Amino acid sequence: MAHIHVPDGLPGILGPMAVSPESAEALRELVEVLLRGPNTLTSAEHELIATYVSSQNDCCFCQLSHGAAAAEHLDGNCELVDRVKSNYATAEISEKLKALLTIAGKVQKGGKHVTTEDVERARTLGATDKEIHDTVLIAAAFCMFNRYVDGLGTWQPTDSLTYREMGRTIA
Amino acid sequence: MAHIHVPDGLPGILGPMAVSPESAEALRELVEVLLRGPNTLTSAEHELIATYVSSQNDCCFCQLSHGAAAAEHLDGNCELVDRVKSNYATAEISEKLKALLTIAGKVQKGGKHVTTEDVERARTLGATDKEIHDTVLIAAAFCMFNRYVDGLGTWQPTDSLTYREMGRTIA
Repeated sequence: MAHIHVPDGLPGILGPMAVSPESAEALRELVEVLLRGPNTLTSAEHELIATYVSSQNDCCFCQLSHGAAAAEHLDGNCELVDRVKSNYATAEISEKLKALLTIAGKVQKGGKHVTTEDVERARTLGATDKEIHDTVLIAAAFCMFNRYVDGLGTWQPTDSLTYREMGRTIA
Repeated sequence: MAHIHVPDGLPGILGPMAVSPESAEALRELVEVLLRGPNTLTSAEHELIATYVSSQNDCCFCQLSHGAAAAEHLDGNCELVDRVKSNYATAEISEKLKALLTIAGKVQKGGKHVTTEDVERARTLGATDKEIHDTVLIAAAFCMFNRYVDGLGTWQPTDSLTYREMGRTIA
């Protein structure tokens, strides 16, 4: 049971969003811009950054829903999503995305952990300022979403089918 | 120098916001709803929660700008803002706000730190579901803003006069 009264049957973030429509609208607009706005990063890359940060924050709902969305963009390759979560350094993704995930992982710990060397490395591997900006903001935003979902003790289903359907909707 | 190119002379969050107008717009709407939307918490209480979380995240720009905004709402009582940051348990604020700051401090560490007892205590002291919801979301959102500001290595002035003016504008 969530820490505050939310309608029955709404998983994760959907419960608190239902009781606070004004902030829900602002959060929806933010996620729309962050994950689906114009950018040179692919949708799969956006979703992998969101999924990785959510897994580092141990947020079941966010990592499974956005992980399913990432898999949708990767022709159903759930194994790759799992490998990014467990050890992205050895996953079959570009070196540029690995460098961006390093930055995202530092942001998850706290903004001051990101070093000039982390950013230079991403830039050397082809990342643009816009891509670095969006990586930092996506990682920071999921530190918010994860805390909102878990800080209110929301109900989070654990079956993969629910999340597969959610992933399709998000993607 | 910030990790990405931003216009000269823009402090803290204003630099990255200037280079990403779409996300800036979404972030502005979120902060507007969170800190100035309809609520039974006072503006000073909203700003104190934002300031306390930002101080726990060691984000100079956010804690000084929102601390100055809180002081504006408290007839210039900067000392009270400082006491809330250093040890809110002994500050001259309501017991309800202390219980909400306990929840905010747990959210800063990670959403799962918030316990049913923390929430029950706030409720016993008069906090409504809406106030508990907003406390969690404000704390979570400042975990995002702090990481955005510090993760991009933005320029942050340290003189109190700059922040006093900023606080007036925010308030």
